[in-house]
Amino acid sequence: MTKKENILSIFALGGVNEIGKNMYAIQYSNDIVIIDCGSKFPDESLLGIDLIIPDISYLQEHKDKVRALIVTHGHEDHIGGIPYFLKKLNIPVYATRFTLGLIELKLKEHRLLGDTELVQIDSESICYFGEINVTFFKTSHSIPDCLGIVFDTPEGTVVHTGDFKFDLTPVNNQYADIHKMAEIGKKGVLVLLSESTNAERPGSTPSEQIVGDHIEEAFMKARRKVFISTFASNVNRVQQVVDASLKTNRKLALLGRSMVNVVTVAMERGYLQIPDGMLIDAHEINELEPERVSILCTGSQGEPMAALSRLSSSNYRGVDILPEDTVIISASPIPGNERNVSRIIDNLFLLGAKVIYGSGSVTGMHVSGHAYQEELKLMLTLMKPQYFIPIHGEFRMLHQHRLLAESIGVEKKNTFIIGNGDVVDIENMTARQTRKIPSGNIYVDGVGVGDVGSIVLRDRKQLSEDGMLVIVITLSKSERRIISGPDTISRGFVYARDSENLLRNVNGLVKSTVNDLQKENLHQWNVIKQNIKKSVGKYLYSHTKRKPMILPIIIEI
Amino acid sequence: MTKKENILSIFALGGVNEIGKNMYAIQYSNDIVIIDCGSKFPDESLLGIDLIIPDISYLQEHKDKVRALIVTHGHEDHIGGIPYFLKKLNIPVYATRFTLGLIELKLKEHRLLGDTELVQIDSESICYFGEINVTFFKTSHSIPDCLGIVFDTPEGTVVHTGDFKFDLTPVNNQYADIHKMAEIGKKGVLVLLSESTNAERPGSTPSEQIVGDHIEEAFMKARRKVFISTFASNVNRVQQVVDASLKTNRKLALLGRSMVNVVTVAMERGYLQIPDGMLIDAHEINELEPERVSILCTGSQGEPMAALSRLSSSNYRGVDILPEDTVIISASPIPGNERNVSRIIDNLFLLGAKVIYGSGSVTGMHVSGHAYQEELKLMLTLMKPQYFIPIHGEFRMLHQHRLLAESIGVEKKNTFIIGNGDVVDIENMTARQTRKIPSGNIYVDGVGVGDVGSIVLRDRKQLSEDGMLVIVITLSKSERRIISGPDTISRGFVYARDSENLLRNVNGLVKSTVNDLQKENLHQWNVIKQNIKKSVGKYLYSHTKRKPMILPIIIEI
Repeated sequence: MTKKENILSIFALGGVNEIGKNMYAIQYSNDIVIIDCGSKFPDESLLGIDLIIPDISYLQEHKDKVRALIVTHGHEDHIGGIPYFLKKLNIPVYATRFTLGLIELKLKEHRLLGDTELVQIDSESICYFGEINVTFFKTSHSIPDCLGIVFDTPEGTVVHTGDFKFDLTPVNNQYADIHKMAEIGKKGVLVLLSESTNAERPGSTPSEQIVGDHIEEAFMKARRKVFISTFASNVNRVQQVVDASLKTNRKLALLGRSMVNVVTVAMERGYLQIPDGMLIDAHEINELEPERVSILCTGSQGEPMAALSRLSSSNYRGVDILPEDTVIISASPIPGNERNVSRIIDNLFLLGAKVIYGSGSVTGMHVSGHAYQEELKLMLTLMKPQYFIPIHGEFRMLHQHRLLAESIGVEKKNTFIIGNGDVVDIENMTARQTRKIPSGNIYVDGVGVGDVGSIVLRDRKQLSEDGMLVIVITLSKSERRIISGPDTISRGFVYARDSENLLRNVNGLVKSTVNDLQKENLHQWNVIKQNIKKSVGKYLYSHTKRKPMILPIIIEI
Repeated sequence: MTKKENILSIFALGGVNEIGKNMYAIQYSNDIVIIDCGSKFPDESLLGIDLIIPDISYLQEHKDKVRALIVTHGHEDHIGGIPYFLKKLNIPVYATRFTLGLIELKLKEHRLLGDTELVQIDSESICYFGEINVTFFKTSHSIPDCLGIVFDTPEGTVVHTGDFKFDLTPVNNQYADIHKMAEIGKKGVLVLLSESTNAERPGSTPSEQIVGDHIEEAFMKARRKVFISTFASNVNRVQQVVDASLKTNRKLALLGRSMVNVVTVAMERGYLQIPDGMLIDAHEINELEPERVSILCTGSQGEPMAALSRLSSSNYRGVDILPEDTVIISASPIPGNERNVSRIIDNLFLLGAKVIYGSGSVTGMHVSGHAYQEELKLMLTLMKPQYFIPIHGEFRMLHQHRLLAESIGVEKKNTFIIGNGDVVDIENMTARQTRKIPSGNIYVDGVGVGDVGSIVLRDRKQLSEDGMLVIVITLSKSERRIISGPDTISRGFVYARDSENLLRNVNGLVKSTVNDLQKENLHQWNVIKQNIKKSVGKYLYSHTKRKPMILPIIIEI
């Protein structure tokens, strides 16, 4: 790939055609600036995988050019890949005070704290990376201290929105700086990269304050303990829970590691106001009158090991949900999590709790942090970009976002729907999407990063569906006959004790297969193994309609 | 379990605290009548399982008392278990003309057709089973020819609603017989069993006709081919697709085996009117002008092997979705299927199609077949039962349904929320829930029914997450030393070629473990195996944070 010097290039290493692992890059001449480095949770087809992070081999190849990682905000899909990234490419990380707090938690976990330069910025900061000048603007989202980013280059200005909504009555002063956005737009934007999560939804997101009103109402009505579960990082939601507890004269307990960690960071850094003496420990809950206690807990997505799930199955030491307690789920289930959340709600009702659940619009207990169509159109209108790249979304969301851009006057040909690895090059004010760089999913499994590939996953899939059968035979080297075995060991296929006949027949089949081959003077191991696999596989499928993995093992003595 | 003679007993073998595998029973004295025998699809935790059916061991034990299986309608969660049931308990099956058609398809597949007495009934039929008189009433649902069932017993009347909604402007005359229901209620209902699927949803379901209007509008607007995907069994929806095709002068092709099968049954039996010459074969699609063709296909739930999924990945022989074609998804994704449906929509947009998708209320392309809260209240009001048993739903739905019953005057203590296997006994007009009969999930995997249990599933889970490592050593019987191996074979754990070091270290560890044991004169196989598992497991976890299944195999020569 040859490339001229003074080209402005934009590409994604994650975040387009998917929700998760956001990672974008702006390159001008010999300077590359990275935006975000997220992770993504695997879907159920990726058996045993813990986490997915972006493939950064292109950046490693060009590491002399990579100047900085700028982080728009502290959600996992924007910071979850940072520890893995820094192990490969140790560059300075720029983020706001709160976002840095969350990144530091993460680096501490990976024992990386202190190894990397962390630079605190705010919406008034200016940074220079070669000929790229970087400035920022405040946005509203479901986590404090979010930034949009402005890259001024000799070729023109590129704006990256980060995640945003327009909340005109936000909690804790987390205002979007619409005036600054208007100024940026007025000066002229060459390329806008804007997030697309809710591009399918008409209208505008309700304000976070609406949720506060509903929480307060539920707290007022509750005559016993109130449990409320939400994302720990939604500090403004947490603030509203604190406020409702205060108004109803309740002490507040925090359950779940991430809740405690994030609240601690938010308090230390001034993003959350909790009066002295209000927080209590879990073991103090039972010492107070039920109507004097509220409990904020993790697990709103039904995560099996999180606090809410354990509470719902009466499995949280020292804390019980009792009849007439109130439980509020202040979140919407992310697609894929519905069943786990439903199971928890069932269990909560079984415990006799009053459960307030259901999609945000029904209960008023949740609002999205991502702009709906009218807000996306407002961003597009403010920025009036010449070129538009919808990011942060699956294909249908990017597609709908393109239609929104068209509706406010961006020509269809000036919108680039890119995939991860696609590069948009801009030269002389003209943008083209012609080349591709390496990109992809790196799987994290345990401590292994990238060591689980398609073969291992294919094997796991087969093992998960039909289990396996190990067949061991010992052959005599000299006489070429079976001197021990066949021994069969089955796991995940049939329960051996119930299937003695089947396994006995397999043994017979293996013997006759091996003997037939010996008669034909075929002694190569791989021939014997292939024939065992074939005959046993055929027999088992015809008798069970299952295809376990068959592992013949031959020992020669 | 002793039981007096003249007791009326009601129980469920499937369908409560779950969605799926509905099976209920009414017993009076020595006569048991079964209502429905459904199946359920496994969730992702049941690795490799194809289907779940009810445990009918209680009925097998009392097979001399089981008189009949009455089927309310032809959905899988009401008929899917029938072939397995009949193999164990060959009793007459009663159902309406259309429902019988679908049951016959199923029996044909299992090669059971002709083995069982199939009795065709309609809403005017009367059946006698001992002292139980059975009559019926018509209901509206998302499949034709549905029945509610009335059991008159010496103890009183039991009504089972089947699945229903109140559609006052239904398609193809599928009216609910409200007058008959009112009469039944007026005569007095002792116990009502009513379905709870939508007990969480306020208001009423829109009429099926609304969908027809929207389909027609989309067909009018479309300038090229129209693809529409819905449940094959929703024959009234299919009728509306036929009507829209007719009005826009399009021929209609059917894609997908179940679509062809069900449409054939519906036409033969008079539940669907399709003009002669309107249906075309798939291979004729390309011979017509695109604006003269519509295609009705399976796969609205994102099923990977169904027609829509294959069409969306350009993998359906002879039929292509081209730019500007219209694709309508006339269904809502069932929880758990969202990701598969979304993937298909992404692919359809990539092909350039106009896709009409999203929840029914947004597009008007789908309405539910299950009563919402106001309709459930109407049923409760019509029947005015003394006792109420909410059925057909997960716990939170049953719980909400109980609240609805309370709201129209059923005393809380007279509602029984039962689990599968719980029995409600009624004697002298007094109901009690005191005893339990065997019930449960039977897993179907391939041809195996019930042979996959918790041990096999636990093994599949471990194998699916971290794979396995087989370690083979051959010991000399006489000298008690390793004469061959250790040989290690890994599947689904690490890719062996990338992990030579790790596996070499495992071999070393196995050798030293075995040698240490020999020195201590410990020769028992199980001791050697346990020690290998322990030391290798510990080593692997510390180096990979994974816990593969470790299978030590010892050959003694």
